[in-house]
Amino acid sequence: MHRTYSLRNSRAPTASQLQSPPPPISSTKKHYFGKSGIASSFRKNTAGTFGPELSRKLAQYVKMEKNVMRALELVASERRNVAKQLSLWGEENEDDVSDITDKLGVLMYELGELDDLFIDRYDQYRLTVKSIRNIESSVQPSRDRKARITDKIAYLKYKDPQSPKIMVLEQELVRAEAESLVAEAQLSNITRDKLKLAFNYQFDSIREHAEKMALIAGYGKALLELLDDNPVIPGETRPAYDGYEASKQIIIDAENSLSNWTLDSAVVKPSLSMHNTSNEVYDTSDEEAIENAEYQKHQQDLENELNGMTETEKHFDQGHHEQITA
Amino acid sequence: MHRTYSLRNSRAPTASQLQSPPPPISSTKKHYFGKSGIASSFRKNTAGTFGPELSRKLAQYVKMEKNVMRALELVASERRNVAKQLSLWGEENEDDVSDITDKLGVLMYELGELDDLFIDRYDQYRLTVKSIRNIESSVQPSRDRKARITDKIAYLKYKDPQSPKIMVLEQELVRAEAESLVAEAQLSNITRDKLKLAFNYQFDSIREHAEKMALIAGYGKALLELLDDNPVIPGETRPAYDGYEASKQIIIDAENSLSNWTLDSAVVKPSLSMHNTSNEVYDTSDEEAIENAEYQKHQQDLENELNGMTETEKHFDQGHHEQITA
Repeated sequence: MHRTYSLRNSRAPTASQLQSPPPPISSTKKHYFGKSGIASSFRKNTAGTFGPELSRKLAQYVKMEKNVMRALELVASERRNVAKQLSLWGEENEDDVSDITDKLGVLMYELGELDDLFIDRYDQYRLTVKSIRNIESSVQPSRDRKARITDKIAYLKYKDPQSPKIMVLEQELVRAEAESLVAEAQLSNITRDKLKLAFNYQFDSIREHAEKMALIAGYGKALLELLDDNPVIPGETRPAYDGYEASKQIIIDAENSLSNWTLDSAVVKPSLSMHNTSNEVYDTSDEEAIENAEYQKHQQDLENELNGMTETEKHFDQGHHEQITA
Repeated sequence: MHRTYSLRNSRAPTASQLQSPPPPISSTKKHYFGKSGIASSFRKNTAGTFGPELSRKLAQYVKMEKNVMRALELVASERRNVAKQLSLWGEENEDDVSDITDKLGVLMYELGELDDLFIDRYDQYRLTVKSIRNIESSVQPSRDRKARITDKIAYLKYKDPQSPKIMVLEQELVRAEAESLVAEAQLSNITRDKLKLAFNYQFDSIREHAEKMALIAGYGKALLELLDDNPVIPGETRPAYDGYEASKQIIIDAENSLSNWTLDSAVVKPSLSMHNTSNEVYDTSDEEAIENAEYQKHQQDLENELNGMTETEKHFDQGHHEQITA
């Protein structure tokens, strides 16, 4: 990974950096006592020291994801506080400022709510990764047993090459190897399956979360257009504010577009230069409808698997149900 | 604000909720000692108790925004930790898992970097809101003075109606009223101007941040397609992994599309049902090019204003420069 980073550190400024140069570094970034709390580093450090060797790194990863979630929760709750305070401040101002800050508060509160949903999804992703950790832990004993028997045989062959125990141990080793072969295949299959499942789910959550955030920001900009920022001279009174209908309509529009959003209506799409993969990820053909249906089915499968129901269980369930109704 | 929330709390499930039912509530959301730290609530509570009456609510708001930023920083740093750990775990796995987790780590690290840039922008927004707080604080004395003189006059008129002091005070009141009139006009103008500036900047940052996140998620899904998740039977070896080129290309594509992204290329756009506002916010006409140019100029103005340079100063600067070169 670090090779890529070292390449990246010296990269040229991006197009949007050229369009608008980066802002100065935030004043909140000076930390005397480190950024994260004690709980966070405790969680991270202990996870790597216990449990079977094989699953330690992933155990640590799962704990670290918990730290991410705690931080996200903090963002969500602080965002909601800020939204309420904005509306509270605006209340004492003139009519238009009051109405618009109130509506901006609604949008910012909604950002906090979106964060909240995202956290719940993040937890599902984390639990799926956790199941890889579990299979890793369970494969460890069979590896250990194989290694132990091999060691014993080598020891006996050196110490007492005529010992009848060697044959017994060699038979035992064959059995252990068979068991280990199965365990390793399970590990390989489950790791890939769950990894793909977990990250597909995670990336879909990010896409939903991000596009909804961008939508909210767009509606926020529309709200700001209603604010009368023509300067007045001292003593002059501002024309009366008549934007109540318009601002309410913007909030209704925002709610509608948020609630109608689905993964199929996502507009941000990566442009891949290798076509063989892009085809599988995003549909650009005119068979979009069919693929969408497939995609939805796939999504449903993901959800079901996450809820612990496998394809076979489902079929069994259906078959069972048909028998009863027949 | 609360009227809208009470309406919202009982709203019908959204389309994406129907497509995929919400996940169970995250297990990290159980907090025994409250979510935010001591520093966070201390900052919030003290800001509201000091300083001029008029600016207290906004002073509190500015402090609360600092809390949001601290939380966002935590997310950014935890995300980068997680990214490194993912790559570290993957290293010990089979070739394809190793390569893909490494590349996923790169993408997740990039998410953390994006958060970081967003925080710097957030600080600019916060500083602009802070300047509203400053004008609020500075208007308070002129209000106080006017009230004090009015009180004095009323007291004297009751106590000693013939006092020659009354006329002096009345003249003073006229002057204080004139000063106050100017101060209130300044307050009204600056509040609107800065409010619009700050939130426009903030919403543009959100749009950039969100669309880039969605892009990264898209490339992440493309990476996952390279993972061979066909189950193997015990003893069978997996075909050799040949995706190194493809995965590298996906990262390069991701970097390119992130670095070429500008606000003009944003694809997530709100649909407004009232056309008079939508026209001003997003260009749908065929004069898009002209409007884009205007928009860019506007953006540049925003940046300049945020950097403390006003339009007049700029013109002055230019005039000055021309004089010298002439």
